[in-house]
Amino acid sequence: AQTTRIAVTPGDGIGPEVVGEAIRCLETLRTKHNLNLEWDQFPWPSHAWHKEHGESMPDDALAQLKAYDAILLGALGDPGPLDDPDRYLLTDSVSLAPLLEMRKGFDQWVCERPARLLPGARQYLADERAKDIDMLVIRENSEGEYVSQGGRLRKGTEDEVATQMEVFTRKATNRIIRYGFEQARARAAERVKESRTRSFHTLDGTACESQVCLITKRNALRYWGDMYSEAFEEISKEYPDVATHHELVDAACMKFVQSPWAFDVVVASNLQGDILTDLAAVLSGGMGVAPSCNLNPTDPGMPSMFEPTHGSAPDIAGQGLADPTAMLFTTARMLEWFGRKDPVMAAAGKELFDAVAADLAENAGAQRGTREIGEAVCQRLSA
Amino acid sequence: AQTTRIAVTPGDGIGPEVVGEAIRCLETLRTKHNLNLEWDQFPWPSHAWHKEHGESMPDDALAQLKAYDAILLGALGDPGPLDDPDRYLLTDSVSLAPLLEMRKGFDQWVCERPARLLPGARQYLADERAKDIDMLVIRENSEGEYVSQGGRLRKGTEDEVATQMEVFTRKATNRIIRYGFEQARARAAERVKESRTRSFHTLDGTACESQVCLITKRNALRYWGDMYSEAFEEISKEYPDVATHHELVDAACMKFVQSPWAFDVVVASNLQGDILTDLAAVLSGGMGVAPSCNLNPTDPGMPSMFEPTHGSAPDIAGQGLADPTAMLFTTARMLEWFGRKDPVMAAAGKELFDAVAADLAENAGAQRGTREIGEAVCQRLSA
Ligand SMILES: CC(C)[C@H](C(=O)O)[C@@H](O)C(=O)O
Ligand SMILES: CC(C)[C@H](C(=O)O)[C@@H](O)C(=O)O
Repeated sequence: AQTTRIAVTPGDGIGPEVVGEAIRCLETLRTKHNLNLEWDQFPWPSHAWHKEHGESMPDDALAQLKAYDAILLGALGDPGPLDDPDRYLLTDSVSLAPLLEMRKGFDQWVCERPARLLPGARQYLADERAKDIDMLVIRENSEGEYVSQGGRLRKGTEDEVATQMEVFTRKATNRIIRYGFEQARARAAERVKESRTRSFHTLDGTACESQVCLITKRNALRYWGDMYSEAFEEISKEYPDVATHHELVDAACMKFVQSPWAFDVVVASNLQGDILTDLAAVLSGGMGVAPSCNLNPTDPGMPSMFEPTHGSAPDIAGQGLADPTAMLFTTARMLEWFGRKDPVMAAAGKELFDAVAADLAENAGAQRGTREIGEAVCQRLSA
Repeated sequence: AQTTRIAVTPGDGIGPEVVGEAIRCLETLRTKHNLNLEWDQFPWPSHAWHKEHGESMPDDALAQLKAYDAILLGALGDPGPLDDPDRYLLTDSVSLAPLLEMRKGFDQWVCERPARLLPGARQYLADERAKDIDMLVIRENSEGEYVSQGGRLRKGTEDEVATQMEVFTRKATNRIIRYGFEQARARAAERVKESRTRSFHTLDGTACESQVCLITKRNALRYWGDMYSEAFEEISKEYPDVATHHELVDAACMKFVQSPWAFDVVVASNLQGDILTDLAAVLSGGMGVAPSCNLNPTDPGMPSMFEPTHGSAPDIAGQGLADPTAMLFTTARMLEWFGRKDPVMAAAGKELFDAVAADLAENAGAQRGTREIGEAVCQRLSA
């Protein structure tokens, strides 16, 4: 079989530390299962590289990364000379730009962020049903509000006008919605295998095992809101076994807090997905456990990118204090992604997920260092 | 003194019922304090009017409403022939349009939504500090993502492109940010009067009694994000007594769930404010208690509009089951708004707020009807 190759980009702050534990786990799994897996580390994108070379990554960065099957990214962002990270962003947010460049350059048109409140993770909601949260937020990752079109007229004057264009294509809309339905089906099949069931209803009352909820703000942003809705209605006909639902983004935020356990698959635009995935991450315990996958499911020549959604936490960087849990869940997701074509890889991903979840459940609230957590997970894997 | 005139527009569903209790309370306060207050009821905007006349309100609706000092709106939206309200929106969301028409027509450029978790209100967060939530979300209400510019090219085909333009002016940006700082100061003064204090810090460490947090998504929506940030920095210099802060909208949603008690005044764009106010409403107990004020603070010739943020709840309409609490809080806000120029009116607003809050605290979780709650509040006012 062909070797699966990973480009490891540790990035800034705590990135290298948490990535170190991911590598340790990958090493353990490779040895144990004789996985045909290789990786190379890159010193970019990073703030350090930027300081030395005046840019976050070399000109041919994407060309170099394209040779890999996946990118495993630690964390980006550095406060630079100012010690308020927020302040830093005000003057220079260049250090986060590579994220968007990779998504765009490799047409990673799906951003997938699962949210489950696992035992041991922090529960922010009062309602005990929070334990049943099990949703997958699927964010359109290639266009929409993120096309970077617009400008500033009469910049800096009292008469300034700033514009920002949102551009949505039917093609990208169709593919993300169809992807949502496919995931809903796959999740339902998974649940049936594990003898878990969920129950949803179509508009005419038919019982379903799964649901896709479409998010728009079509009562104010009509043009793409209507297009999204029409595409959703049309494509849903191909999936009579999946229930459909629609929420306006503002109501969805409310319902994420009031009854998140009622959601299954959620499909949202780039910006609305950005917002909802952060909210979903909190509902499943916070950034310390949240994985994020930027996927190109259609072009095998393009690497997908896997990153925890947390920041680079410069305040605790280099001290061995960062929690690698989100990074390890992210790594498990990456293996599962490779597992689409390779059952051994899929099993390894599941094994890593289970080990991290078990570690989390057993050590809820314990103060442990980066290495300690990484080693505990590795021990489970070796056991 | 001049008579203050209110246009009462009950609207759809439970609107007329909850408005009925608001009127009852206004009547009680008018008699008690000899308030120079009058109101007229309008059968529009409403779905019923739309059915009969083919439009939600008459052509000269805004001209008629302009003669009033305020509009007190119950609720809009009707499921029509379909019984899934969501489904209805898909085919026809016209019934909500008057909200946006009034905001635009009367240049109600501020949307103000206070969030406090009052005793008796439902607490969704597990952390006990939720009791300390006390923020004011100020939403830019006149432009931005809501300008309705854009369209659909090659509509309905595989090659369709939908665009939506966001337009932000420096003028509207400056005024909403300045309004935010003014409110922060006013809230701090209020707290000092009531011997409550809060503590914030400027970037250089100076202690402050209040804070304004600006929301943008400037790492992805750069053009207006940068303009907002620059305007914020500039205007903040006029308010050295108010601490400043910035959050990206996705992080803000997360922090609203993780530590909402840390926010004071929050200033956001039209869409991001729409999202954050819904989230803030949930944090303070849900739509059942959340008031919303659409204000024009600069042109006394333009009426402001006051509405609870809940929907028309057609499923329970006409049964006397709707909770009028949000409507009554909204009415209290309206009186306080009139109170800017009239201390008696301000006192009446405060009295109504206190009565509704006391009623809520004493009857937490009790099953009571619309009228029962309205009467209980009126009795407190008469006592
Ligand atoms: C860093 C930023 C540009 C990015 C985004 O908005 O997509 C981040 O918030 C995310 O969710 O991955
Ligand atoms: C009904 C809708 C157009 C409106 C908005 O988006 O402003 C509503 O959500 C609100 O918050 O008042």
